[in-house]
Amino acid sequence: MKIAILPGDGIGPEIVDQAVKVLNALDEKFELETAPVGGAGYAAHGHPLPEGTLNLAKAADAILFGAVGDYQYDNLERALRPEQAILGLRKNLGLFGNLRPAILYPELAGASTLKPEVVSGLDILIVRELTGDIYFGQPRGVRECPDGPFKGQREGFDTMRYAEGEIRRIAHVAFQAAQKRAKRLTSVDKANVLETFQFWKDIMIDVSKEYPDVALDHMYVDNAAMQLVRAPKKFDVIVTGNMFGDILSDAAAMLTGSIGMLPSASLDANNKGLYEPSHGSAPDIAGKGIANPLATILSAAMMLRFSLSRAEQADRIENAVKQVLAQGLRTADIYEEGTTKVGTAQMGDAVVKAL
Amino acid sequence: MKIAILPGDGIGPEIVDQAVKVLNALDEKFELETAPVGGAGYAAHGHPLPEGTLNLAKAADAILFGAVGDYQYDNLERALRPEQAILGLRKNLGLFGNLRPAILYPELAGASTLKPEVVSGLDILIVRELTGDIYFGQPRGVRECPDGPFKGQREGFDTMRYAEGEIRRIAHVAFQAAQKRAKRLTSVDKANVLETFQFWKDIMIDVSKEYPDVALDHMYVDNAAMQLVRAPKKFDVIVTGNMFGDILSDAAAMLTGSIGMLPSASLDANNKGLYEPSHGSAPDIAGKGIANPLATILSAAMMLRFSLSRAEQADRIENAVKQVLAQGLRTADIYEEGTTKVGTAQMGDAVVKAL
Ligand SMILES: CC(C)[C@H](C(=O)O)[C@@H](O)C(=O)O
Ligand SMILES: CC(C)[C@H](C(=O)O)[C@@H](O)C(=O)O
Repeated sequence: MKIAILPGDGIGPEIVDQAVKVLNALDEKFELETAPVGGAGYAAHGHPLPEGTLNLAKAADAILFGAVGDYQYDNLERALRPEQAILGLRKNLGLFGNLRPAILYPELAGASTLKPEVVSGLDILIVRELTGDIYFGQPRGVRECPDGPFKGQREGFDTMRYAEGEIRRIAHVAFQAAQKRAKRLTSVDKANVLETFQFWKDIMIDVSKEYPDVALDHMYVDNAAMQLVRAPKKFDVIVTGNMFGDILSDAAAMLTGSIGMLPSASLDANNKGLYEPSHGSAPDIAGKGIANPLATILSAAMMLRFSLSRAEQADRIENAVKQVLAQGLRTADIYEEGTTKVGTAQMGDAVVKAL
Repeated sequence: MKIAILPGDGIGPEIVDQAVKVLNALDEKFELETAPVGGAGYAAHGHPLPEGTLNLAKAADAILFGAVGDYQYDNLERALRPEQAILGLRKNLGLFGNLRPAILYPELAGASTLKPEVVSGLDILIVRELTGDIYFGQPRGVRECPDGPFKGQREGFDTMRYAEGEIRRIAHVAFQAAQKRAKRLTSVDKANVLETFQFWKDIMIDVSKEYPDVALDHMYVDNAAMQLVRAPKKFDVIVTGNMFGDILSDAAAMLTGSIGMLPSASLDANNKGLYEPSHGSAPDIAGKGIANPLATILSAAMMLRFSLSRAEQADRIENAVKQVLAQGLRTADIYEEGTTKVGTAQMGDAVVKAL
């Protein structure tokens, strides 16, 4: 089993180091191969997703990804900016199924900006489609406005689109995830305005016939954004498109107050996947040894579970993380009075010890 | 001065009645003319925006709008559904500038699901562009997928677009609003992915040169959704497109916990406008006399201020609302122990009395 390790930029390398420590501490050894990505890819090879990195990602059984982006790359032309690496990996590897859990760890309940009674026990799974929608639709660009009151002016434009098969396959991922949980699925759309999402809704309803044990409901995206703030515990699994999923999954993650704890998986049709923390590259704290490595360590656990069929190893890691939290160890982002503040490497070491 | 009164569906008629009471209690009398809209428009004339209603709205100096939508219209074809009325009014009247304040009234701090320290004193203004973007872009529909792995299948599609002049005019609205407040403007985009919003960002930066006294910053929409949950008080004015504004303004409104209190204005280039509560038609409680009329009454105050140049009258109404809150009167949605629960009409009467 070969794992591609793509640390990236900012805090990426230091948090990925901890996850690698944890992987190396398991009985079974995996082949790990590292390659630069994002700003680091640009610095090394002039492109955020160098050919060698893409080939490694293609050849590997799974990919562990840190985070990309740093100040010095902000003014590059769009095609060379770090985030193009992540878009390129998703598209080239067909990673259409993005699983983003938003879980509140009981020990960290105080970190949420929401009242404890609103979020205690929160456990939502957001299933975001990741290779379609307005992210990749063509045509797009800047052109002369063809008609209407602004005719002749410049206009920026993009194309939102979803084909039937794209909706069906993400629907199956979501229904099957719901079957393993509380069997409730909310499809988030904007069918009252968008043709794409009226079509999305129609297909969701059609696929739901194959899953009579799952209760499907539909919610407009603006209402979903409200309900996440008002009563987030009412959700079990949410499925939505790439653009709405980008917004809602970040809002949901932030509800927990500890986005430094949340892993994510991006899967292809054969459960090969890319695993990364839900947070970003946080260049402001990079290199200081204070970043929280737990989201990345938990991403490695998800990788063992989904792509490498090593569920017991995943359980072991997840339990080790629970143990270090129970021991009162906290990185700065989740620190509270009465707990013990530790750095990135200390946290990684503690997880290894708890394994 | 002529005001078009469009009560609509659900709780629309009962809450608009209270705002009409308040308008009639002012010294100056306005000409008020009522017409059906939404489901009520369909029921009366077979269309959610009957010609007579549209003509009245065009002829009036301002429009007071309740809310639209009710169960019995849910299965009509899209073009006849109630919400088409609001889209039609916006487009036909050129109401491109949507102002949505999210304010936390000190008396209602407990109603928020967020911790008091996170939201106390919250006062954000969201400026949402309302007649462009993917809401109205052409082409759109369901077609045969022209290429790629899903070629030949059906696909739903829409067009996102913003012309330069459209961005400029909403930018001016936002910068001028910021000048009257804390002089900070956050433009929310997704420039890292969308051509439309890279273009949006470029134009915002260009317009900012005319407003050196306003500090402009830029935030991706996913990050904005997070920051609204994490630290909403850091925002002053937010400006964004139609789609992102739909989502973020609802999330921001919900932060206050009392969406029944929040008015909104939708303005054209000459400050003619449509005024409506930020909440919906709530058909589940319609006709029970328990809906909160304050958002509609405050919408009438906004109307006096922005479209009718009657700032003192607007102040009077806003102060009367503060008084009834201070008196401890509460409709069911904002009721807390120790306050006095009142119905829709009682609340309207109390505001009239406090005038
Ligand atoms: C970096 C960016 C292109 C990306 C996205 O918009 O998908 C990020 O926000 C995410 O959610 O992974
Ligand atoms: C009813 C719907 C079309 C509308 C919108 O999406 O603009 C509503 O959500 C709003 O925000 O006014």
